[in-house]
Amino acid sequence: MDKRTHTESKTVVFQPSGARGMVETGTSLRRAAAQLGVDIESICADTATCGKCRVVIEDGQFGNIGSSPDHASVMRSTEELWITKRAKTWRKMGLDPDRLRLSCQALVEGDMVVFVPESSRANRQIIRKAATDRHIEINPAVRRYYVELEPATLENPLGDVERVAAALVAAMTRIHGDAKGWIAPDPTDIWFDFHVIRTMGNAIRQGDWKMSLTVWHGRQVIDIRPGYSEDLYGIAADIGSTAIAIYLCDLITGEVVGTDSMMNPQTAYGDDIMSRMTYENEHDDGLATLHEAVVTGLDTLIKRTLRNHHVQAIDVHELTIVGNTTMHHLFLGISTKHLGMAPFVPTSHCAFDLKARDLSISVNPSANVHMLPIAASFVGADAMAVVIAEEPHEQDENLLIIDIGTNAELIAGNRNGLVCTSTPTGPAFEGAHIEYGMRAADGAIERIEIAPDTLEPRYSVIGIDGWGPDRFVLNDSEHGLVKGICGSAIIDGVAEMFRSGIITPRGHFATDLTSNRIRQGEFGWEYVIAWKDETSIGRDIPITLTDVRQIQLAKAALYTASHLLLRELEIEAPDKIILAGAFGSQIDKTKAMILGMIPDCPLERVVSVGNAAGDGARIALLNRRKRTEAQEIARTIRRVELPIDPDFQREYMLALNFPHMAHEFKSVTHLIPVHGTDPMAERFSTSS
Amino acid sequence: MDKRTHTESKTVVFQPSGARGMVETGTSLRRAAAQLGVDIESICADTATCGKCRVVIEDGQFGNIGSSPDHASVMRSTEELWITKRAKTWRKMGLDPDRLRLSCQALVEGDMVVFVPESSRANRQIIRKAATDRHIEINPAVRRYYVELEPATLENPLGDVERVAAALVAAMTRIHGDAKGWIAPDPTDIWFDFHVIRTMGNAIRQGDWKMSLTVWHGRQVIDIRPGYSEDLYGIAADIGSTAIAIYLCDLITGEVVGTDSMMNPQTAYGDDIMSRMTYENEHDDGLATLHEAVVTGLDTLIKRTLRNHHVQAIDVHELTIVGNTTMHHLFLGISTKHLGMAPFVPTSHCAFDLKARDLSISVNPSANVHMLPIAASFVGADAMAVVIAEEPHEQDENLLIIDIGTNAELIAGNRNGLVCTSTPTGPAFEGAHIEYGMRAADGAIERIEIAPDTLEPRYSVIGIDGWGPDRFVLNDSEHGLVKGICGSAIIDGVAEMFRSGIITPRGHFATDLTSNRIRQGEFGWEYVIAWKDETSIGRDIPITLTDVRQIQLAKAALYTASHLLLRELEIEAPDKIILAGAFGSQIDKTKAMILGMIPDCPLERVVSVGNAAGDGARIALLNRRKRTEAQEIARTIRRVELPIDPDFQREYMLALNFPHMAHEFKSVTHLIPVHGTDPMAERFSTSS
Repeated sequence: MDKRTHTESKTVVFQPSGARGMVETGTSLRRAAAQLGVDIESICADTATCGKCRVVIEDGQFGNIGSSPDHASVMRSTEELWITKRAKTWRKMGLDPDRLRLSCQALVEGDMVVFVPESSRANRQIIRKAATDRHIEINPAVRRYYVELEPATLENPLGDVERVAAALVAAMTRIHGDAKGWIAPDPTDIWFDFHVIRTMGNAIRQGDWKMSLTVWHGRQVIDIRPGYSEDLYGIAADIGSTAIAIYLCDLITGEVVGTDSMMNPQTAYGDDIMSRMTYENEHDDGLATLHEAVVTGLDTLIKRTLRNHHVQAIDVHELTIVGNTTMHHLFLGISTKHLGMAPFVPTSHCAFDLKARDLSISVNPSANVHMLPIAASFVGADAMAVVIAEEPHEQDENLLIIDIGTNAELIAGNRNGLVCTSTPTGPAFEGAHIEYGMRAADGAIERIEIAPDTLEPRYSVIGIDGWGPDRFVLNDSEHGLVKGICGSAIIDGVAEMFRSGIITPRGHFATDLTSNRIRQGEFGWEYVIAWKDETSIGRDIPITLTDVRQIQLAKAALYTASHLLLRELEIEAPDKIILAGAFGSQIDKTKAMILGMIPDCPLERVVSVGNAAGDGARIALLNRRKRTEAQEIARTIRRVELPIDPDFQREYMLALNFPHMAHEFKSVTHLIPVHGTDPMAERFSTSS
Repeated sequence: MDKRTHTESKTVVFQPSGARGMVETGTSLRRAAAQLGVDIESICADTATCGKCRVVIEDGQFGNIGSSPDHASVMRSTEELWITKRAKTWRKMGLDPDRLRLSCQALVEGDMVVFVPESSRANRQIIRKAATDRHIEINPAVRRYYVELEPATLENPLGDVERVAAALVAAMTRIHGDAKGWIAPDPTDIWFDFHVIRTMGNAIRQGDWKMSLTVWHGRQVIDIRPGYSEDLYGIAADIGSTAIAIYLCDLITGEVVGTDSMMNPQTAYGDDIMSRMTYENEHDDGLATLHEAVVTGLDTLIKRTLRNHHVQAIDVHELTIVGNTTMHHLFLGISTKHLGMAPFVPTSHCAFDLKARDLSISVNPSANVHMLPIAASFVGADAMAVVIAEEPHEQDENLLIIDIGTNAELIAGNRNGLVCTSTPTGPAFEGAHIEYGMRAADGAIERIEIAPDTLEPRYSVIGIDGWGPDRFVLNDSEHGLVKGICGSAIIDGVAEMFRSGIITPRGHFATDLTSNRIRQGEFGWEYVIAWKDETSIGRDIPITLTDVRQIQLAKAALYTASHLLLRELEIEAPDKIILAGAFGSQIDKTKAMILGMIPDCPLERVVSVGNAAGDGARIALLNRRKRTEAQEIARTIRRVELPIDPDFQREYMLALNFPHMAHEFKSVTHLIPVHGTDPMAERFSTSS
């Protein structure tokens, strides 16, 4: 190596940021970038092994500086080998191999303009494709480091742990040393997980003293494997009462490698969280049964996803888990007994980490499972995940976020503070306890429209294109195709019944209307949606007075909760309403407003964001800073306890009525079937 | 409570320390003591529950102050109840209940002299009964705290974890707040182990919001149980190649509740560490087999000890483990492959903690297992335990500590620095590879004396009182009682053979001597110790030329290691030699010096300290500061690598000879049988 005795300064510009400054000749481009505030990624600590720091040297005249690949130092063999071996890949990516350099190797020798691709940035981002696109910074809790050790000798037989810790800190310092605010840990502060201690001796020697380490939160070594390796995956899981969804992510690129979901096996023991709690209370081994069901379910789902995407279990180094408070507790094996009775106290609000092995989840045994924090007994980690996805705390306008399930979780506020509450809405919104209610599955009515003049309905059915009733009648059979009504259609139906005057603002049937569909049925007044010959059950399918009452009770609870939450913020109405969860993306927001389910808000400012809880879990997986954010929010969010609010009962009684209908709603219908595709699959499958 | 508006100062003296000063009236005695530098214990944070802070108010005139129980505030009912309920116990302990007060409750109202019993001191000590008595400070890594919570209400339904963390920090502050250098943690820095999170909800409510917590290192809550409880135990284990010994300790009083030991089940796979390593290398499941053997062995031993002493497994909250580096690795399931071949590198030097559940040890699942640090590949955690027990680093004089086994570990130095090394000594010292060698068991010759004039021996046998040979002949039988020669007797025998001139300084037989005991046997020259009719094996038992060679090789290795270690310290001779380990307490130190096993040192400055490694494990269990000390020593001790020392071979060859004999040794013999009692049992059974 030539040691320069004279150095001079050259102008270097980094694109696309435009950061520009004078840099001493002989400085590596990576270090030059850091000096100018552009942090470039590295795994291998400047040993020309990982190539994560690749940059493109621009050619030509830029402003007052002339740049050319020749203005960088001559390539040495390791770098050249790295670049030429992958020349084909570069050309495919539209990059000219002749202009490509590893910024850890190329030294400044003249004025230069250097382009830093997004994938080479230390703080690179990935775009979350959702209703509202967001950029997620890639800064996971686990990071990969490549380290080369001085082999042990008789003269220096230092232990493996001490040798690796020293080399790791040195590598960390080379990689992050120039970054603002980074402080090198002392090698004695580096911990090695028990399982790593067991296996590191062989890994180190198999790789001839070169190895890839996985480090958790910059302190705990949770994996050591021979040589250079980039296999670093994580899994974000959203454990819902009904379904479990997981996202398998590459923690180096941030990409979603695969998603999958399954029914929560706990549904065998009860449909909603209340019935699960009852099951736990009434069975000696209730807690163990429910705990094992969900953990085994998740484990099965993980195994299937890993197999489908050819990822090894040992390469999964981190998990994030969200779920409502009941799911959170049962997943950890915590009794929900005290959660389920006054004063409804969760075991823990705070986030915490445990080892995957303690839950017998088949990933790397040293992997940590990060449980997101919970805000309150019925505002769970899923709600906190929605918050870090939707970021109300970053905004000036006041958001109202509603995650609707059998229990609705509501969060409202902006950067000045957040409040939250929850309210049981009953199972009506999910089609349960509705006379002909069913899950959103093939054969379920999903959209209903009623003509105000004829009082005749049109409706669509999941699994069948177009609108009926006609198309659901099978001419050559005694039966039709309709099986029942799903949750979103009940809302549609009741809203349309109200809009067309079939039911009054107080929810009574307008018995003076002339229609054979309005009649006294077995359980009182009802309105027939589908005649017997359209259905596969051999009976007419009506919406009954009882069904209307169920919807009234549910929507009143939701509205009252929203209203009291807004009152807590001392605002009349939110600037924006966000409907989260699968149900939120299935209901017709116009109908929700007609029914008075949600507070007044311009219709275009009501958005459905689908499984935002799952998004939040993925964000927490990819960016550890968002965990701190979630923790801070869970700690400071104000909890509004509806049961002890003196106004709750009065407000609730008032909210049972349907509201005065705005003129624009009198004719509007939204006729787009929504169940045709899985909204979650659509949302994530394209982002990988 | 009467709020005083005027306070005045009174003189308070605390005995036995004599700390004296002016204290404001109305100050509790516990706080007054802290102000004067006397820290008084508390578990219950001044709630008159634990009684750990009890003191005796002295009566009478002391110097210029008059003290009387009346000078303390009037007793309130909780304190009175506590004292009177235990009046009988106090009387038995020689304490007058009428003078006894809880120092957290009694307030200063006049001049007082207060006696603080050792058991009430925060830094109380327990005396280790050993060759060299030591005071062990009781300051374990786990501490018990008693906490009373505000019950959760609908108005304040904060989670259990957050509620307990806040109350715990408040209790800690009440207890330690006045102690020098203590800094209160933030409640968010308190961690709750996963298993505690699972069970705390029930424990809290069972105890009506009053509970006893176990806290590890002031940060991690590892146990919560209802109400007030003092059941806090720990186990120190010494895992030797041959035997496993455990000490069950009460971590509040510091007392040893019970000890027990067993053969290391690994002996089934090889007698010494070399053969264990070979076993591991030669069997696919070798590591698993050896790991499971020792862990299962320890677990069995723990279960037996707990049962014998009526202690619940769940009440054992901490373990400390010592052992040589091979035992350390195999216990953790770490391969010894790299340890066993050049450059002989251990996986880790540093101490570390893991959860007992990760090793499937049947104690509290949240208990931590503290593995003491290791100094070098063959100077293990057992040697570090000996160091914290014998404390060479605290002394001005230079110590040489020798732990003799099939592998000898040597540590030398003083407060200016320590050096260590190890040397294989072969199995000769343990009676193995000796023609008629056997373990120290019934029927083994344990002491030998040879009359220089007649060349006739006298010897003693384990399990039989008095000296023979005569008493070992059975007149009415063909056989006698002697079965073989144990390790310590081989040293005795060879030393006596040298002293009486039967063998020369170079280890040759003096074939010109007239004795029928000196003869050509099957394997060359030999000296008969026991004639056929004294033995149960139907053959004469001699010490052979091969046996003499084995001893020469072993003692030369030991001597050379000692010599090179002293040379490293640049000293001629140690001020004191400490022989550690069971073997060290069995050999006759005079004979060891005659043979030249150990360097020159005044005989009265050569001491055997028995199982100092076990003592060290117990010290680390009782006093966490000693762990830091061990860690620091393991980090800084200089390792002398004999195999690469250029002088080793030459020194070793020279050391094979027997040394010039000091005059005083020519007639000395030490004729006290040593195997009659188990020295370890004697050492600990009385200290509880």
